[in-house]
Formats: sequence, structure tokens, C-alpha cells
Amino acid sequence: MVSWQSEEALESNCLNPLDPDEFRRQGHMIIDFLADYYKTIEDHPVCSQVKPGYLSNALPRSPPHMPEPLETIIDDIHKHILPGLTHWQSPNFFGYYQINASTAGILGEILCNGLGVLAFSWFASPAATELESLMMEWLGEMLKLPRPFLFSGGGGGVIHGNTCEAIICTLAAARDKVLREIGEENITKLVVYCSDQTHCSFKKAAKIVGINAQNIRAIDTTKVTEFGMCPSSLKQAIVMDIKVGLVPLYLCATVGTTATSAIDPVMELCRVAKEHNVWVHVDAAYAGAACICPEYRGLIDGVELANSLSFNAHKNKPSESKEVIDYKDWQISLSRRFRALKLWLVLRSHGVANLRKHIQSHVRLAKLFEELVGEDDRFEVVCKRNFALVCFRISPSALSKHGLSTGYLSGDASIDNGHIKNGHTVKEPVTSTANINDVNKRLLERINGTGRVLMTHAVVGGVYVIRFAVGATLVKERHVRSAWKLVQGHADAILSDRP
Amino acid sequence: MVSWQSEEALESNCLNPLDPDEFRRQGHMIIDFLADYYKTIEDHPVCSQVKPGYLSNALPRSPPHMPEPLETIIDDIHKHILPGLTHWQSPNFFGYYQINASTAGILGEILCNGLGVLAFSWFASPAATELESLMMEWLGEMLKLPRPFLFSGGGGGVIHGNTCEAIICTLAAARDKVLREIGEENITKLVVYCSDQTHCSFKKAAKIVGINAQNIRAIDTTKVTEFGMCPSSLKQAIVMDIKVGLVPLYLCATVGTTATSAIDPVMELCRVAKEHNVWVHVDAAYAGAACICPEYRGLIDGVELANSLSFNAHKNKPSESKEVIDYKDWQISLSRRFRALKLWLVLRSHGVANLRKHIQSHVRLAKLFEELVGEDDRFEVVCKRNFALVCFRISPSALSKHGLSTGYLSGDASIDNGHIKNGHTVKEPVTSTANINDVNKRLLERINGTGRVLMTHAVVGGVYVIRFAVGATLVKERHVRSAWKLVQGHADAILSDRP
Repeated sequence: MVSWQSEEALESNCLNPLDPDEFRRQGHMIIDFLADYYKTIEDHPVCSQVKPGYLSNALPRSPPHMPEPLETIIDDIHKHILPGLTHWQSPNFFGYYQINASTAGILGEILCNGLGVLAFSWFASPAATELESLMMEWLGEMLKLPRPFLFSGGGGGVIHGNTCEAIICTLAAARDKVLREIGEENITKLVVYCSDQTHCSFKKAAKIVGINAQNIRAIDTTKVTEFGMCPSSLKQAIVMDIKVGLVPLYLCATVGTTATSAIDPVMELCRVAKEHNVWVHVDAAYAGAACICPEYRGLIDGVELANSLSFNAHKNKPSESKEVIDYKDWQISLSRRFRALKLWLVLRSHGVANLRKHIQSHVRLAKLFEELVGEDDRFEVVCKRNFALVCFRISPSALSKHGLSTGYLSGDASIDNGHIKNGHTVKEPVTSTANINDVNKRLLERINGTGRVLMTHAVVGGVYVIRFAVGATLVKERHVRSAWKLVQGHADAILSDRP
Repeated sequence: MVSWQSEEALESNCLNPLDPDEFRRQGHMIIDFLADYYKTIEDHPVCSQVKPGYLSNALPRSPPHMPEPLETIIDDIHKHILPGLTHWQSPNFFGYYQINASTAGILGEILCNGLGVLAFSWFASPAATELESLMMEWLGEMLKLPRPFLFSGGGGGVIHGNTCEAIICTLAAARDKVLREIGEENITKLVVYCSDQTHCSFKKAAKIVGINAQNIRAIDTTKVTEFGMCPSSLKQAIVMDIKVGLVPLYLCATVGTTATSAIDPVMELCRVAKEHNVWVHVDAAYAGAACICPEYRGLIDGVELANSLSFNAHKNKPSESKEVIDYKDWQISLSRRFRALKLWLVLRSHGVANLRKHIQSHVRLAKLFEELVGEDDRFEVVCKRNFALVCFRISPSALSKHGLSTGYLSGDASIDNGHIKNGHTVKEPVTSTANINDVNKRLLERINGTGRVLMTHAVVGGVYVIRFAVGATLVKERHVRSAWKLVQGHADAILSDRP
């Protein structure tokens, strides 16, 4: 048999990857899948229970030659992907800092991807550039930023993909400004400053832009300043560097550190830095959003002396810096998505009043947790709570009361990227601090092992603390209360374990 | 009147930003909005007709205090956003290179955002890390990459946000490797190589990682090599740099340049570079995807001699490099989304066979356009067509036939970021080349001015060419044919304009 086909018929036999009707049908399926996921999110263990390599054993080693229907893929997501997730959107997720999803944010992303425009220049899609400028003005107003940070005041803002990108861009700008004055050959003399609490992405950024690894100063912090950077220590470091012929370049001050949400004193640090012509970047990745509430705005007082500021607007991270308006020149990548659309949807769908309330409700729940810790004399809050993060532990006195103060540390205890592995064998006597740390490690391991909640830890000033961060969009008082009961229950068990 | 409210009631009065039922309702609305958009996408002028500043005059200067319903926001998108878009997904969009959206890709993004997990370490969501590794193996197989680039061969791949990020990461790795040998103080001696056709983001990346601006060598290319980099010119440049005490570091070879999709000869360039211990990165951002078709795979022959490779998998850009598997160490940012999910959906929903067909159908349409150009003796194809990009112009001979060869160039002709502004006044006599360029500029301006299609331009070897890139997901033969008729119509008009 012989047959002919018109070109049009041949074409329609080929893949039609963006058929509107098929898009509508499959789009509704995915939305329903997600709606059902949020409905039942608490049924999953927060923390994935899979073993390394589980997925490569479950899925084919090679890509399929022919198409598979979405129904099959969704089945596989249920079977193979969901069990391998740590459920960041679960109301029982109290680890790291949350990335709080919202309907408006997700819809904004869908629109941004669905319209599929690039916005590297005004011409490439005027709406994208203009909406981003406007959103940066809106955010600037919400944060009461000084006029020089706004387009209307000669400055301006940009949405970056992440904090590290914001730091690389400002650091490279600061570097080039100074090198134009002192000559490119002096790049090895440039020094940058942060504290021992600054996020590690700062060091990564500094190395990327070619700062000599020996010229990255991490100023020590202590409990005395609640792990905030001490301006006189900064001054001392700068003066010493100048004395040996180095060139102080850039200071990264953090409002809300990753470990304990500590606050570097922006105003005083800016004063020291400005005396020596050092660029100041304020990294408010976590706490910046809280500054839209009047009660927190004071924390970035002094920002008018800084050169740049970046923060995380619930997963949108604008960084305020200098002029122009082909946004490709404001960032690393040439290509850029229409991310302002997401921010616009979020701000309008919630309104400023509700965004404030949302942040305040998280702080209120963290305060509740702090009170619960305070009521149980076996526990202590280790660092001052600033926002919605409580750093706590079983206290040394509780340990000695329970006859564990001269206990033993398991020989194969190890912490690996927040994943705590801890054997049960008891081998050698250790110091009391190590012992307390070990008990708290074991406590966290047991808590997370239940799959009912997820918390993470930090070590500050040698002290192992459990971090309880409130920030999941779906979190309610009952989740906080039952998380605390879980902590207490496991503390009971651990404190009655005699060596 | 006085009233009391329980805490639960108060809480429910507050914003519930991720209510599953509301998510479902609004999610369906947005999906329907996009399905309707694709259905009617050809009704919009491809190229936005708005004037700078149009949006800030239309939208409020301050964020709303109270929430607004999604219905209002969607109205505003129709009224204010759509007119300000350049419709990249339109089948009449032949500009730049396309970012082709697909149902599977958009659904993958929705899932990735909806699940809202971060995947900076294996522990933070095992499925995300494991699926990304597996997808990199799948892609590696599709591209028939040499084993050392695969995890199974001791190498491995990662999904970056964009090419510039891939280059920064590999460039910083190459830099640090060499500086460990020759000392950090010698950073100013490092030299990097590209061609005058290499994408400008390479220079940006080199400056970011601290390469002295004077040490970025852009090797000249000519029509003789179809604007591919000449290995002997590279060798000459390297030898000269070594002679004056500099240290050759890194070569960026491009397969499918931005302007004309020219191809640098990977194998020969690698041989020259390897003689002098220079890191070779193959940037196949545009043409890499085509290499899944057997007929194009030969273009990356020699990649086994390179150190790294990056390409753009229809807007997902993996870069193949070295070991480990906490993906945060493979990229700039610490945080990372579950982007492998999107790639998985795309590969499974289409299957390798259809992805190949899809690419081949775009090449076929470009070939058709090339033939149409060839049939009209007023036009010429300026550069060899390699993939789905045709670079053409009105030819010098057509111009002289029409008595325009000693014509005049408008005094206020200017090109700004692909946005062509060109007055109509005719002022001073110019050389023939400038004249031909001007005529083609005017042709492109008139074509785009209709709003019926969008094409862009490039200047190579002093010649202004109109770029006709086929790549929109929805493009069919009729769009290509009517785009060509439009070109011919405007050529008629221009060629009958006598000075």
C-alpha cells in the first residue's frame, strides 16, 4: 500500500508541545495535584526517610524514546518523588529558614513562565522592565528606604536570583571602582570584612571575584554582643590591614544571621567603614522582610550610610544599587525572566497590611515557643530571639541534675550538613561541653527521626543549639504546641537514659 | 459593643495564603488565562507598541494596603501588561533565539514551584539531588558525551540558571587551579581567549572573576572561516602571551554563536589549547540541543579533549563538570530549586524521538526560508546556515540595479539594542557599504513596525544582516511563508524609493 500525506497533516502528526486545549487539561491536572498535596501535606514524614541511591534504582537509566502520558508521570511522582522530599511547605517544618510558598507567589511564577518572555532590555519586553522598576519602588516604600536607594532618588533596585548574586554584583562594582584608582595589579591587596556568623556564600562570592583567600577577614563574635559584629573589632582589623599596606574594600553586615538571626549594628559599622572608604553591603536576606513592620524598621537604621542592600522578599530577592535600566547590566546573567510579575501578584493579593500581619503572626508563634521553653527548667533559650527563630537546648544544669554531666560521648557521633548520624555505642569520657552538645545532638536526631517535625541546628561559640524557625505558610499554633510536646517527650527519654 | 474571638477564629481571619481550595480555584483561573492567551497569541502585535514610561503612568505609585482579588489583577494584566509584552511565544517571533515554552516545561515549573523544596544538599531533599544526577546522565546519553563527563565515568553534570553562571563557575575553578601553582599574586597575568563572535557574557564573566580587562583576547574572525575561530590565530595569540610572561588560562569555544550560529572548530581548538595547558570550555548554549540529532553530533567532536561543556536544553542549562554531590558546591548560589523535575517532565512527555523531530522541523523551516531567499535575486543569504537561523539581506547588486548604490544615509540612523530608530531625512552621501547596511536597517525597521513579525539583526564583518531564527514552539510553515511575503513586500517599497 502506498499513501501520501499533506505537509500540514505530517506536521499535525508531529509533536504539538503547546496545544492550548491540551495545556488547559494538563494544567488543571497539575493544579489539582498540588491542591491535594497541600491538603494532605501533614500525612508525609516531614523529613525524607529514603536511603542514598534510592531513586536511581527505581527509575530507568535512559530517557524514553517515545512520549509518556502525564498520568503515568504523576503516578511516578506519588511513588518515587514524594517519598524522597523533605517537605519544606509542611506546617511541621521548623528547619533552616523557610521558603514560604503562597498561592499568589505560585500563580505569579506560573504566569511568568507561561508568558515566557525574556526581559534583558526594555525593548525585549517593556512591561517586564517597567513593572520591575515600579515593584522596587513599592518595596522601597514598604521598607522606608532612604531616597537615594530609589529610582525616584537617583538609585534603584533589581530582582536578583539569590543573595550570592547580589553580593557578587556589588562586590565586583566596589572592586572595579577601587582598582581604577589604585591599578589592576593591586587586586591582591584588597581586603573584605564579615563576621564569623556571616553566611558562607559571602566567602564564596569574595573568592569568585578574585579576592585573595587570605584577605577575607571574619571578625570574631561572642555571646556578649549576641553574636553581632563589634564595630571596634572591625575598626581594629581595618587599621591593622592599612598598616601592612593592604586596601580595605568591602564590608558585609548582616541583619538576621543564618545561625541565630543575630543583628550586626548597621549604623555603627557604617560609620567605621565610611571613615576608611569601605563599601558597605547590608545583607538582610532573612530579616529584611520583617522591616516592613514598623517595630522592626529600626534594625536597618543607618542603611542611608550603606552602598547597597539586599533582602529576600519571601523568596524574591531584590538588591538595591545603582542606575541605568537595561536590567541585563544589573546582574550576572544576560537573560532574565519576568519575575516582577510574581512580586506584583504577591503584593496585590495580600496587601501590605496582611503581609505585616503574616510576619507578625510568625513572630508571635516563635514567642510562644520561647515561653514554652522558658517554662521547662530543663531547657534554656541560648541566644536572644530577634524574629521568628528560637535557639534552645537542654541546659547544662538539667544534665547534671540527671546525673549525665560526666557522661560519655558516642565514638561515632558525627554531623554532616545538618544530617545527624549518631551511633549508640558509648566509648570514651569527654568534657562536659562536648557532653551537653552531644545530648542535644541526640535529642535533635530523635526528634527528626520521628518524621513528625523537622528542626535544624547550629554551633555558636562552641555551643550546639537546636534551631526552631517559624515561617511555614501553613503553620498554626497547634503545630508549634505539638512540636514542643515532641521535644519534651524525647528529652524525658534521653534524660532518663543513664550511661 | 464588645466582642471576643478565640485565637483560632482570629487566625482564620488573618490571611491564609496557601488555602488548598482557594489555590485550586485560582490555579484553574490562571491556567485558563494562559490557555486563552496561547489560543489568541497571534492577535497581538508581536513587538510591543508602547512608549517608555507607559506603565508607571498606568499603575498606582504605592502598594495596596488591603488585598485585591485575582479577578482585578487579571483584568489589569489584560489592560496593562499584555500590550507591553513582546510576545516571545508567538509563532511570528523570529528574533534573537527563541525560548520555546512547552506544556511539559511549564507544568514542570509549576510542580517545582508548587512543591517548594530547596535542594542545596542531599539531605534537604534527596529526590531533587538524585533526579538531577539522573537527568544529567540521560542528557549525557542523548548527547553521546564521552564517559568522563558522566557521573558513571567519574565526571558529572549540574543544571545552572544560565550560561554565564556555568562560565563563572568553570572559570573560577580553572583560575584557582593555576593560581595554586603560580601563586595568587599572579592573578593579573592570567589570559583568557574567545573570538569576536563569542557572546558578551563571556567578557562579563571574565571580569567578574577578576581577569584583567587587558587580558581578555577576542580573536578576530572573518567570512573565510564563516566566523568560526581560527586555530592558528589562537595559537599565535597564546604564543605571544607566553613570550611576554603572561599565563594562558581559559578558552571559550562556541558551537552556534549568537549573531550567526557560527561554529568554532572544537577538535582543532582543543588540540592547540591542550598543548599549552589551557582549560577549554565549550559553550553550546544554542546549538547543543541540536546535537541530540545524529546529523549534528559531529559538531561537538573533540569535546572529549575539553574540560567543561554547557548548553541550553530548551531553557534548562546543564553544564558538565566535576564530582561531589551536594549540588550547592557546583554553583554560585547556595539555594537551589528542584529544576530537574522540569527536565524530567519534558523528556518523558516528549520522548527523545519527538524532541529530535521538533528540532529537525525547525531546521527544515529555516531551510525553506533560505530557499525562498535564494529564489529572489534581490536578496542574498550572507552566512552559511548551520541550524535554524538564516542571516540574509538585500544584496548590493539589487541595490545598484535599482539605482540606489550611490544613495544617501539618513543622518540620524542609529541602532540601539536591536531597537532600530531611523529618521527619514536624507542628508549626506556615504560609502556603498554603509548604504547597503542602511537599506537593510530600514527594511527591518519597517518589517518590525508592522507588529506582524519580529526579527532582529547582527553586524558581522561590517555587514548588517537580518536574522531570521526559527524556534517558536507554535511556528508552522504558513508563518514562515507569510513572514517572507512581508519581507518581499517591504523590499518592493524600499527599492522603489528613489533618493
